[in-house]
Formats: sequence, structure tokens, C-alpha cells
Amino acid sequence: MRQVRDHYQELRVRVAETAGLRRTFTVLFRAFDDGVAFRYDLPAQPNLGAFAISEELTEFAFADNPKTWWIPANRRAMDRFEFLYASSPLSMIDSVRSPLTMEMQSGPVVVLHEAHLEDYAAMDLARVGERTLRPALAPWADGVKVRGRTPFVTPWRTIQIADSPAELVPSVMGLNLNPPNRIADTRFIEPLKYDGIWWGMHAGKYTWPSGPKHGATTENAKRYIDFAAANGLRGTLVEGWNVGWSGDWIGTYGREFSFTRAYPDYDLRAVADYARSRGVQLILHNETAMGIGNYERQLDSAFELYKSLGVSSIKTGYVNDKTAEGHAHTGQFMVRHHRKVIETAAKYGITVNAHEPIMDTGERRTWPNMLSREGARGGEYNAGGPDGGNPPEHETILFFTRLLAGPMDYTPGVFDIRLATSSGRARMPGEPRVRTTLAKQLALYVVLYSPVQMAADIIESYEGQPAFQFVRDVAVDWDTTRVIDGKIGDYVVVARKAAARDEWFVGAITDENARDLSVPLDFLDAGTRYRAEFYADGPTAHWLDNPTEMIIRSEAVTATSTLRLQLAPGGGQAIRLRKIP
Amino acid sequence: MRQVRDHYQELRVRVAETAGLRRTFTVLFRAFDDGVAFRYDLPAQPNLGAFAISEELTEFAFADNPKTWWIPANRRAMDRFEFLYASSPLSMIDSVRSPLTMEMQSGPVVVLHEAHLEDYAAMDLARVGERTLRPALAPWADGVKVRGRTPFVTPWRTIQIADSPAELVPSVMGLNLNPPNRIADTRFIEPLKYDGIWWGMHAGKYTWPSGPKHGATTENAKRYIDFAAANGLRGTLVEGWNVGWSGDWIGTYGREFSFTRAYPDYDLRAVADYARSRGVQLILHNETAMGIGNYERQLDSAFELYKSLGVSSIKTGYVNDKTAEGHAHTGQFMVRHHRKVIETAAKYGITVNAHEPIMDTGERRTWPNMLSREGARGGEYNAGGPDGGNPPEHETILFFTRLLAGPMDYTPGVFDIRLATSSGRARMPGEPRVRTTLAKQLALYVVLYSPVQMAADIIESYEGQPAFQFVRDVAVDWDTTRVIDGKIGDYVVVARKAAARDEWFVGAITDENARDLSVPLDFLDAGTRYRAEFYADGPTAHWLDNPTEMIIRSEAVTATSTLRLQLAPGGGQAIRLRKIP
Repeated sequence: MRQVRDHYQELRVRVAETAGLRRTFTVLFRAFDDGVAFRYDLPAQPNLGAFAISEELTEFAFADNPKTWWIPANRRAMDRFEFLYASSPLSMIDSVRSPLTMEMQSGPVVVLHEAHLEDYAAMDLARVGERTLRPALAPWADGVKVRGRTPFVTPWRTIQIADSPAELVPSVMGLNLNPPNRIADTRFIEPLKYDGIWWGMHAGKYTWPSGPKHGATTENAKRYIDFAAANGLRGTLVEGWNVGWSGDWIGTYGREFSFTRAYPDYDLRAVADYARSRGVQLILHNETAMGIGNYERQLDSAFELYKSLGVSSIKTGYVNDKTAEGHAHTGQFMVRHHRKVIETAAKYGITVNAHEPIMDTGERRTWPNMLSREGARGGEYNAGGPDGGNPPEHETILFFTRLLAGPMDYTPGVFDIRLATSSGRARMPGEPRVRTTLAKQLALYVVLYSPVQMAADIIESYEGQPAFQFVRDVAVDWDTTRVIDGKIGDYVVVARKAAARDEWFVGAITDENARDLSVPLDFLDAGTRYRAEFYADGPTAHWLDNPTEMIIRSEAVTATSTLRLQLAPGGGQAIRLRKIP
Repeated sequence: MRQVRDHYQELRVRVAETAGLRRTFTVLFRAFDDGVAFRYDLPAQPNLGAFAISEELTEFAFADNPKTWWIPANRRAMDRFEFLYASSPLSMIDSVRSPLTMEMQSGPVVVLHEAHLEDYAAMDLARVGERTLRPALAPWADGVKVRGRTPFVTPWRTIQIADSPAELVPSVMGLNLNPPNRIADTRFIEPLKYDGIWWGMHAGKYTWPSGPKHGATTENAKRYIDFAAANGLRGTLVEGWNVGWSGDWIGTYGREFSFTRAYPDYDLRAVADYARSRGVQLILHNETAMGIGNYERQLDSAFELYKSLGVSSIKTGYVNDKTAEGHAHTGQFMVRHHRKVIETAAKYGITVNAHEPIMDTGERRTWPNMLSREGARGGEYNAGGPDGGNPPEHETILFFTRLLAGPMDYTPGVFDIRLATSSGRARMPGEPRVRTTLAKQLALYVVLYSPVQMAADIIESYEGQPAFQFVRDVAVDWDTTRVIDGKIGDYVVVARKAAARDEWFVGAITDENARDLSVPLDFLDAGTRYRAEFYADGPTAHWLDNPTEMIIRSEAVTATSTLRLQLAPGGGQAIRLRKIP
């Protein structure tokens, strides 16, 4: 793996200056070990004050026709990131999201993305020539792309380059292009695992609105808090606790949502007190349904309430195609909104895990309370929706695409793979279900990085499950990452060293094909013995008809050992490596 | 490999009959060994005479969300088949072409297509639900999809099913659903290999219009005829022989094209006489530029002239987005036109090889003079166009998609892989070039079936090339086909037995990855020794930087032998197997 250093070189070019009506802007380039970045600066000047951008004409022209892995942007009535990936030559795409990962025909891998998106539209990409892309900026409701006033800087456009997919790691370039941390006291920010009242709603056991199957009752929340406390999870998410979920909450842009008033069967203070007494963070859900005005009006009062209750974590949601006013998810209006939520949350000592968000552009360097987010098709699609759940290859693509932008709250760890317990009946062939083996669910904790990781299933599914020990043990914060091997859409093997702990974890996942993989353990400390604990697919495991067969065993290994991993179709393997004292 | 039998069962269902204004249509189902087919019949009836179809509401609803391999249909200003393939879950596609190949998550492979398209719009497919497709019929210029009069039958909609991609073979179902042969004397119909004045224009050595670099001169045509005669090729194609190529022939829909008048430097009769004297079929090119009226007005006079010259083969072309009148390539207007050309050609004893055609729907059973066609992105894209040539995986997808509909004139056999001789300079990195090894070019003759196969390169490129012996030897007509192994987009290995010859040929191709493949020769006659002649990638061959390294060798084998094939990145292997007397 290439060492990615964070030093850089700068080059400033003045690109436009006309004599008559003199207007100036400059392009600033920065070169990193693993790529380059540039942005446009519009300095304060007499002839340019307030302005509106109707199109950004940057072009990315490629020397050959790379294979791209993409999700569509600007679809009719589907303005979101929650798509399965398609792959095709660059010359066949239309409008796509960034980050965009491309395998050049000549070998290297190129990733286009952006950094430090603060007051601009997010960068979707549209093809404007056979091999040329241009930023496609989602508009305000009135069609304007970006409003600004000099002095003004655009986000950075970043081009990351690696020799092969396995050398693609989330670049520090994007983080370095954001300003340093602005939060003085960061003690409220804690990486953690969490359980939650959530999958039960997707699977059909519970409902968000209050009623006979209401998930977010005081009693049920305490049960989930107890489970978290008993199993070393440090957080419990509760969705459906607040009023507003009845009726057509999407069609009305969440008009009825209150972010302070709980349903009668959910005692907000009692649950918060109980969580604190058990040493568990309560994570409160704020679904906006893109009713941004309604949410922003309540932001301060809600966060003040949460702070008074000792609640320091929220999960936000933006389930809808556009805002109530017609603004796009990725336009400047929503970019400003997301920044406002992060900054307001920081003021009250609250961390944010955003679902249906805009893409990570490194703002968590400045605001480290921006812990994690969704921004892709997550595990929830395995429970519902008409199109059959995520195919086994899905996460092997995510690793090389979405995850390059930053951490993702994918919500792995579903043990009841056919949803028999969580929905009351096992899924029929073709119905959405988790297209995975149990071992792969464990491996995802290592493969898909997030400083907050959910044990996503209903807690009943973990009862009497020896494999749950891995969820208890696995780290969520890491010192070092090594991508051992991988091919986009086929498989990936990752080793990560836990932060401030002498432990390594290895995660390997495959698509619908079985695989034998070799993992040299040369990343371990030389001359030291480690206890390796394996959670492996059983010999006849298969995502479709035998998903839970698993072999759990351990053996002593050293840095000179090479592991042989046998992954089942749709399978994986999770390994914990601890120094033997 | 499953044996595909051609017996079938029929089921007729009357699906609509209303009492008030009584109108009737029926659905006819036929079941085959490898799939099912159905069509709609509108019998003659008092209340329904002439009609117009504005939409066909057939729906194909899938039990899970298969991985599909697709090219787009109904693109803005790109109404064609010449696309690279994309792959994605079904739930991500928009409008696509048929045949459409789908790998179900539960295992089987399903191919949607149609048969016996005679007087209807061709069946593109549009997604209308998460997992539901509907025929998308390209309209007449006035928006109507189909015009008809009872009694009327639609084309068959066919659903082919196999257990795995390697069991997908071009089905006989489509042929069986077409009426039997209508040509009394079929002696003019001959499978053959051919050279031609064609690649030189794509590469830049020659021009279509007359001028200093004109390709279709009398002298040059005779040179190509001589080469064909000397090398056992039985045909020579000449493009650019007829007037009309000057100026904007696409923008004017080929208004100036004459299909009888030759350029002054091309003596039509002399060349035709010379070809006949050398035992070579002259194949005359008819480019229409979608000026259908202009072409149809000349059809009889042109074909009568060709017949009088002893010319029995044409290659047609339809380079444009729409007809001069605004009709779509795949609409009913063009379906009728293509049928008219085939039937008229049959009358004059002429075979047709159509480029930019509609898709094969089995009409060659009825009109076996419809020899082959393009209908996908062929080898010509390796010479020009801005998007870099076909990627190495392209033909490994074509085999499992386009080729399931019927034969394709892909034009393999480019030996000057970097286009140094044919264009006057070797291509720069990133420029279009053939992304292949030389051995793969040979293997394509076996893998991609067509009863007419071109030795596509300029003839100078074959001089002193030992590998050209395979092109001389390989058959174009086959008794038996065995798909040994394959994975869509990755690789494919095919064995075929030559028609009326005791010889087998094996072709293996791979994508950008090197592969080791095992080929058991159990298809050979037991107890018989065969001489195997191998044309294999050399040990350091690579499509990008070492494309021509090749090992040619032979050894004796029997039906109990297993060959080990080592394919280079972007490589292949071609094998001829002859009985040892």
C-alpha cells in the first residue's frame, strides 16, 4: 500500500482578467501524494459583488474510456443516493454522483470528488463529450445553481489516483482541504457501537407511529438500553419517539413533526435518565421529510432540550425527493442547511449521524461532531422496498466508491437473515432479505468504516448467538488501515488496527462467487504471537439457502503466517487478532 | 450442456371479449425446452378492422432483481445499437434493447427477446416498476406505435431460460417461431469468409469518396480479389464504389447516393467479371444513410443490375439516427423496409448482410438470404470514434447478449493491432485501437458466430503472418456448438464442429484479466487421434503493450485429453482439431 503523506504543494494561477470591465478570478492548485485538487477563488473586486452561477464549466477530459462504477444523479423523482450501482464505460454514462470511481483501460484508478463544500451546490457529474465530464450542480427551486458574493471560493475539485483498486484508500486529501477543528471541547464526541429501535420497523415487527405495535415505548427503549449495556455497545437509537409519524408524513414534508414532543407511551426524560444511569448514549432520531423550515425553526429548542436531558447524539433523516420549497437534495440550499445543523449541534455538544444526507466532503475535520452518515443504499434496503434487497456484490462496490468519501453508517449485523423473527415470517424467494452469510455480516464491521456502527437487528435475534461475540469485540475507531486485496464488485480484504488497542481485525467479503483468498499477516508486530479468532463461512454455507452455517475457532499466528480464507457465495470472514501476553 | 429440442406445446387463451361492442383477441402460448413464447392474435371481426396501437401493455414482472447486461434504447439523438454494455440490477435500468440477458439472484439466466417480427415495431424494453419491464415500441414519425388491420398477429415475445450463462446458447425457439423457408433455389446462399476495402477507410488509409486516397478503385479491388482467391476467402467487400459519398451524406440522408452508378475510377463490370473469374464473390455495399425513399426507389434497378453482373451479395448500411421522414430505426416503418429489402433481394438471388439493422428475430429461417448483420458495437469502433475502442471485456458480453439473437458480422481479424500500417502511424495511448492480443483476434472467429466472417484488416497487414493460417483454415458454418465455460463479461470458451468436415475449432477469449482455463476434449470422437493446432498468447503477451506475441504449435490429442489454456490480459486462444488419418 502506498503511504499517503499530507504535505502538499501549492500553485496559484490568475486565469481571467479583462481590461474593459476588469474582473478577476484565480485557480488554486494543490498537489498531494495521491492526487491533485483545484478550486476557483473570486477575490473582492469593484466590478463583481453579488453574483449567480448558472453553470460551472470545469471539464474533466479523460485520455481513455475507463470503466466507471456509478449511481445516477438528477433522476426524475428520485433525487437520492440510495441506488444500486451500475458499471459501464465512461462513454455510456449520463449524469452520476460523486465520488466517481473509474478504472482506466491503461491501469490506474481515478476518483473524482470534491472537498470543503460549505456554500455551493454539491458536485454531481454529467457527461458532455464521449470522455468528458462536467460538474452538474443541482439548482435552487428557481433554477439558479449557486448564489454568492465576492470574496468567494468554490469547493475543491479533487482527483485521486492509485495504481490499482486495492491501493485506493479514503484519501486524507479531502480532510486536509478543510479548515481545522473548530470545536474547543470534543469530549462529547465518542466513536461507538449501538443498537436501536429501527430494524423492527423496516422488517414489520414495529411501527414508527404510536399504536399497538409501536416500537418506541418507554419499556422497549429500556430493553434496548439494557441490551446495549450488557454487551458493551455504548449507544441506543430510538426512532418513532416523537409525534408526527401518523398520516402522510412524506407527502406533507413532515409538517406534523415535533422534535421535542414525545408520543404518550414514550417518556423522554425517563428513558434519557435510564440510559445515562446504564452508561449508554441515547441517540434521538430527527426525521425531517425535507420539511427544512419546520426543522430549522425547532433546531435550537430541540437541541437545548436534548442537552438538558444529557442526550448528545442525534440521527437525522431527509426522506423525500425535494424540500417542501422544491430545492434539490444536493443544491446550495441543502448544503447550507446541513452546515447549519452541524454547527448548531456543535454548539449544544451534540453529534450528528445524517441519513439521506449530502455526500461527505471532509467537513468532519472542522466539525468532528459530524460523525457519520448514510449517502448510499444501506442495509435497510434488505428489509423492504420492492426490488429485492442489495445483491451480494453491493458492499464490494461500496468499499471502492461511496466509502472513499468518508465513513458510512451502513447498519450491518443482521443475524436473522431471512427476517423470520423480525417480521414474523421468513421471506419468500425473491422478497427482500439479506443476501449474505452470517460471517459476511460480521466482516462488514471491519470492511465498511464508520466511527458509529449499529448492531442493526432486533435484539431478540442476538440471543444465544455465539457469533455476536465478534460484534461485542470489534473496534469502531482505527489507527491504521491496510487494504490487503480487492477488485471492485468482486471482493475485498481489509485489515485495520484498533485505535489505542494492540488488536487487529480483518474483514473479507465476496460477491455471489465463492473465493479462496490468501492473507499474509506481515502487518503484525514481528516476533510476537497473536491469538486469531476466526468467524468463517461453514463448508456448505451459501447466502441463498444456507446463510448461517459458521465455523468459529481460534489459533496462534505470527507476522510470518499466511491465512487461507474460504468465502462462501455471498459470504465473508471476520477475524480478531490479539497479542498473546 | 442442455439438449435443446424443437418440439413444443401450444396453449391458446381467449383473454378479452366484451358483450356490448364485442371485440376479441387471444393469446397463444408455446412452450419449448429452453423457454416459452407468446403472441397476441386479433382475428377478423365485425367491430375491429383497421387499428392503431398506442402502447403495448405486456408486462414482464420478475421474482427477484436480476443483474442485467444492457445497452440503452430511445436515447436522445443516439437511436442505435452501437453501444458498449453497462451492467446493473434490473431495478436501475431505464429503456434498453432486446435481447436482454439477466442473471437472476437465485441462479438461472433469463433472456427476453422476440421472434417473427414482420409488421410491427421492434421490442425495446422500458422499466415500469422496480422489477417490471414493458415493451417500448419505437413510434412512427407521427407518434403511432403500430398500424394494422385484422386479422393480425403480433411478433412472439420469447423468454429463454438456462441454469447458467454457459448453458445459454442461441435458441432455436426464435427460428421455430418463424415460417419455413420460402426461397426455392438456395444455391446462391453461401457461408464464406471475405476480405474488403473497408478497414482502410476506418483507419485513415483510404477514403469512401473518390479522390487521391480512394479505396474502391478498379486496381485496388482486383488486389483484394487476388488476395481472397489466394487465401481461400470466397468473398471481397467493396465500400465507396458508388457515387454519393462526397459532402454531408449523413445530414442529407444520402440524397446523392446512387446504387447503380460507380465512381469513374471504379469499373463495376470489370471488377465483377474479374471476381467471377477468380471464383470470388463480389460483395457490393449499399449505404442508405436512412434515406429509405431514395433506396427503395432504386431497389429493383440496382438488384437487377447486380444480378446481371453476377453479383449475389450486398452489405447494407443505415448510418443515421432516424429516417429522412423522422421514423425510428426500430419502428414499424423500418421493420417493413428491412423486410422489403430481404424479399426483393431474394427475388434477385442476392444475400444481405445488414449494418445498423434491426435485431435478428429469426427471419433468416424464412429468408435464408438474410445471412448476417451487425446490430451491436462491432470491431469498427476500434479504429475510430472518440471513446477509445471496445474494452477487452466487450466480446465476452456480446457472446451472452447480442449473439443470442443470431449471427453477427463483428469483423474480427485485425493483425496490425496498433493501426501503424493501416493508418500510417501507431496509435497513441488512449486513442482508439484494438484492445486485444493477436490470438484473441483469431479466437473471435470461433466465438462470435456468423456465416460470413471478414478478415477485416487491410491485406498488407497479413503479409508474412504465420497466424493468418488460422483465418484460412477456420470454418464459418457449423454442425454443433458446445459452450465449454463462460461468465458474462469475464471470459468464454466455445467448441464448434465444422459443417460437413471432420474438424473441430475451439475459441477462448478473456477480458482484461489473464486466465487459466481447462478444456476437456470429451466432445471429440472417442478412440480417435486428432492433431491440435494451437494459436496461443505468448508468455508475456498483453493487449496493451505486447499484443502480438504468439506461440503456434501442434500436438496429438484424444477425447480423453484436457487442454490447459493460458490467456493473456485481453487475450485469447484459437485451436483447430483435425482427425489424424
